[in-house]
Amino acid sequence: MFSIITHNKNKYMEIKKFIPALRMVEMEYPEIQADTLEEVVMFALQYLRPRIEGNYIIDDSGLFIDALNGFPGVYSAYVFKTIGNDGILRLLRGVENRSATFKTVIGLHYQGENFLFTGICRGSIIYEMRGNNGFGYDPIFVPEGFTRTFAEMSTSEKNAVSHRGNAIKKMVEFLKERDAI
Amino acid sequence: MFSIITHNKNKYMEIKKFIPALRMVEMEYPEIQADTLEEVVMFALQYLRPRIEGNYIIDDSGLFIDALNGFPGVYSAYVFKTIGNDGILRLLRGVENRSATFKTVIGLHYQGENFLFTGICRGSIIYEMRGNNGFGYDPIFVPEGFTRTFAEMSTSEKNAVSHRGNAIKKMVEFLKERDAI
Repeated sequence: MFSIITHNKNKYMEIKKFIPALRMVEMEYPEIQADTLEEVVMFALQYLRPRIEGNYIIDDSGLFIDALNGFPGVYSAYVFKTIGNDGILRLLRGVENRSATFKTVIGLHYQGENFLFTGICRGSIIYEMRGNNGFGYDPIFVPEGFTRTFAEMSTSEKNAVSHRGNAIKKMVEFLKERDAI
Repeated sequence: MFSIITHNKNKYMEIKKFIPALRMVEMEYPEIQADTLEEVVMFALQYLRPRIEGNYIIDDSGLFIDALNGFPGVYSAYVFKTIGNDGILRLLRGVENRSATFKTVIGLHYQGENFLFTGICRGSIIYEMRGNNGFGYDPIFVPEGFTRTFAEMSTSEKNAVSHRGNAIKKMVEFLKERDAI
């Protein structure tokens, strides 16, 4: 059995396509303050171990802006809630280097062991918000090789190139190799 | 016996003035991502319980800027490391409301129970950095009733009005009432 610990039904549906036996568990777990998503996810995997039966999946994502030393990074959700896209655009006013990386780390507890799968999407921060799809920083991020923002793409277009999509692919491959799905 | 869990010798010395039997313990503990310092400190107190003998003290501080919905708040240390005072001043460019609050929460594990002591210092964010003392956001913060920034004050002047000073006072009072010090 596989569980995904999340409050986000879209995340659940996206992974259920690959793991039909997946169930969604709405449960709180601590996310620590750390410099990397990997540390956050690893701590949470260990915290959940005595609290969840069977195999389970969690994930965490962040936007890392080169010119801001990786800010908002691990704290992307909090930063979005407080200063938002407007704050990011202010911080980058007059800044030429617009490079940024979206990153997702999926944590998988599988048969008693913990595994991490990382997906990234390189791109750049544009000068104004564009598009209404997606959420968070999607309206200011254009992935490499594209001219539209994540918020101007359909969900399936975005999933095909996105950090989360890449991380999911790696996990699915891992599980297929083990005949787990 | 009292322990303070910190890597900061100045914090240790400041509290040792009031608690002569204090020892300094350099040890890592998780700080969770949360909306309030109280949650961060309470989680850490509980985490440390099976790991430290006797009474112990931890603390966490943050700068909460009204016009930025409390940003950088609980993540003040990380935000300072990435975008710094320059970033804060950029975010406040053209913003009239400069009100901000520095806040410290001290967590005390005393005779098997957890207690929190909160100290705040109201003030405002000025338009440029001033002063070389202190650390972090001290050069851009002027406490209410003053014209100098924290970074323009001596350590003892700052301790007399600061959020940390206030929180320490409350804890010391609490311990005196119990004849613990």
